[in-house]
Amino acid sequence: MFPDRGGTPRIRRSFGIATLLGIDIGGTKVALALGDAQGHVTARMRRPTEPSGDPAADVARIAADARRLLAEVGLGAADLAAVGVSAPGPVDPVRGEILHPPNLPGWGTVPLRDLLAGALGAPVRVENDANAAALAEWRYGAGRGFEDLVYLTMSTGVGGGLVLGGRLHAGLRGNAGEIGHLPVEWDGEPCACGMRGCLEAYVGGAAWARRLRRIAPEQGRVAELAGGRERATPRHLVAAAREGDAFARDEMERWNDYLARGIVALVFVLAPQAVILGTIATAAGEELCFAPLRERVSRRVWPLLGRGLAILPSGLGEALPDHAGLAVALQALAAR
Amino acid sequence: MFPDRGGTPRIRRSFGIATLLGIDIGGTKVALALGDAQGHVTARMRRPTEPSGDPAADVARIAADARRLLAEVGLGAADLAAVGVSAPGPVDPVRGEILHPPNLPGWGTVPLRDLLAGALGAPVRVENDANAAALAEWRYGAGRGFEDLVYLTMSTGVGGGLVLGGRLHAGLRGNAGEIGHLPVEWDGEPCACGMRGCLEAYVGGAAWARRLRRIAPEQGRVAELAGGRERATPRHLVAAAREGDAFARDEMERWNDYLARGIVALVFVLAPQAVILGTIATAAGEELCFAPLRERVSRRVWPLLGRGLAILPSGLGEALPDHAGLAVALQALAAR
Repeated sequence: MFPDRGGTPRIRRSFGIATLLGIDIGGTKVALALGDAQGHVTARMRRPTEPSGDPAADVARIAADARRLLAEVGLGAADLAAVGVSAPGPVDPVRGEILHPPNLPGWGTVPLRDLLAGALGAPVRVENDANAAALAEWRYGAGRGFEDLVYLTMSTGVGGGLVLGGRLHAGLRGNAGEIGHLPVEWDGEPCACGMRGCLEAYVGGAAWARRLRRIAPEQGRVAELAGGRERATPRHLVAAAREGDAFARDEMERWNDYLARGIVALVFVLAPQAVILGTIATAAGEELCFAPLRERVSRRVWPLLGRGLAILPSGLGEALPDHAGLAVALQALAAR
Repeated sequence: MFPDRGGTPRIRRSFGIATLLGIDIGGTKVALALGDAQGHVTARMRRPTEPSGDPAADVARIAADARRLLAEVGLGAADLAAVGVSAPGPVDPVRGEILHPPNLPGWGTVPLRDLLAGALGAPVRVENDANAAALAEWRYGAGRGFEDLVYLTMSTGVGGGLVLGGRLHAGLRGNAGEIGHLPVEWDGEPCACGMRGCLEAYVGGAAWARRLRRIAPEQGRVAELAGGRERATPRHLVAAAREGDAFARDEMERWNDYLARGIVALVFVLAPQAVILGTIATAAGEELCFAPLRERVSRRVWPLLGRGLAILPSGLGEALPDHAGLAVALQALAAR
């Protein structure tokens, strides 16, 4: 039995290196990384996802990639202590299945864990990308040393992962942490999920881009940076705000206002030590996101709860895809 | 090391009975219960709290009560395996301190754990009443068999306790589960806590009673049952609604509307298997509370999350004070 709290599990070692394989399956890219429990990456590869429409073939290709990567460092599949997969939700971590991911065409219910375990002969664990990222930030990134943290993806959508008491809180069928769908305005904007007033409908990248295409000034700085208003994304908005553009600054205020609502709800429910915000928030940085956000949250939570709360950017950034899979691989060992 | 998940800890036994002492300190009553890990109560007493203004004297009186209760069943303090205390918040469970409880005049920061452990010579754990109730429902009540549950007190205020993965989620300084202060209307009603739009400001008993005294019809059924509008409480409202009174029915609708908002937020954050509602909700029952509430929640959460969710009344009811302390006593053992 491996400990599942805080400590580093004992793992099988080969050539003095504890060999873990992390696989991050994204809508556009697949990232594979070999590394150890401390997060040292010894080999990596990335390639376009290119889903073929046949998930079994797609998984076989990932397994072939893994064997090639192992061979590069003089190892084989038999040297693998564990494999961790970060996959786009929804994921059932108990069954190790990925369930009709919207950004992997042709994938229905795919028994990813069993397919990969069969191909590689090692224990495999599958988590949704937000949970995997939360584990990665907790083990290797901005969340090191915290017992209780929430990670928010802040990307096209807003996903979340909860590490509580030093372990992932999975919830019903692995679906805890759907913080993008916390209602922040009860009868507010329609959300892509079918509900109304969800946090994601206000601060998600896709919803925000749609809004910008509708309301950004035709001749404004955002449209200029994007090469036309119809191409505007949060990235252009953040760049324009950094230059001091008034429209973009107002939009960032609104974004922080709604994000604060979501974080305030998390604070009263969970009393976490840290909330870590990825992608868009990390890109917006201290001045445009974190400083105004902390100020807004501190006004709306009790001092008792606000004083001990850290609101932080991702500590892994570009390294996240590699570390997400490795952090899940450690869970695979802990669960045995 | 005792297991802290699911199983019953090994405990010291005397005369074949595992002797745990549960103490529930309320604003009006103190309840003491001797029992075992299975929740069988062998002796109990209740008396008015009567805080003297000197917390050390108040705690000494509780310890004397405990010794008297032990003597009744032929035991002494040396036979106690553990003591659990359910106390009005705020409580720091790590330090075992109770911090300026608003309903215990004269109590500042009181080192309740150390005072009781000194007086009784047994391990003591202190939890706030909402956390203790969550543990009690999980071990002995409506929450048995669930891995993840939320308990809401639904009394004068709205407190909450989270049992996640079969253990209490305490959060920063023991303050997780302050679900009464989830914002349900961002710039809504002022709350006694100093914030605005908190769930408690809409569905808490004290806030609701204030509202009834303002808006209940002078000659209506609620005022009649209360003996005057200025005496109206949620209890009279529930009784009038049960008789079919139109005003009272409308008020119950509003109450369920806001309560649903809080539960929807909990579902997206935690994906619990069960939400258990005490006091006012339990009294209102299936027709006035649980059936309409389930319907409202199911409309606003994803079927994936709503299908596996039980929304239930307290299973302990009047027995809660006895079992709250016993459930905390089991935590005292688990933590050793």
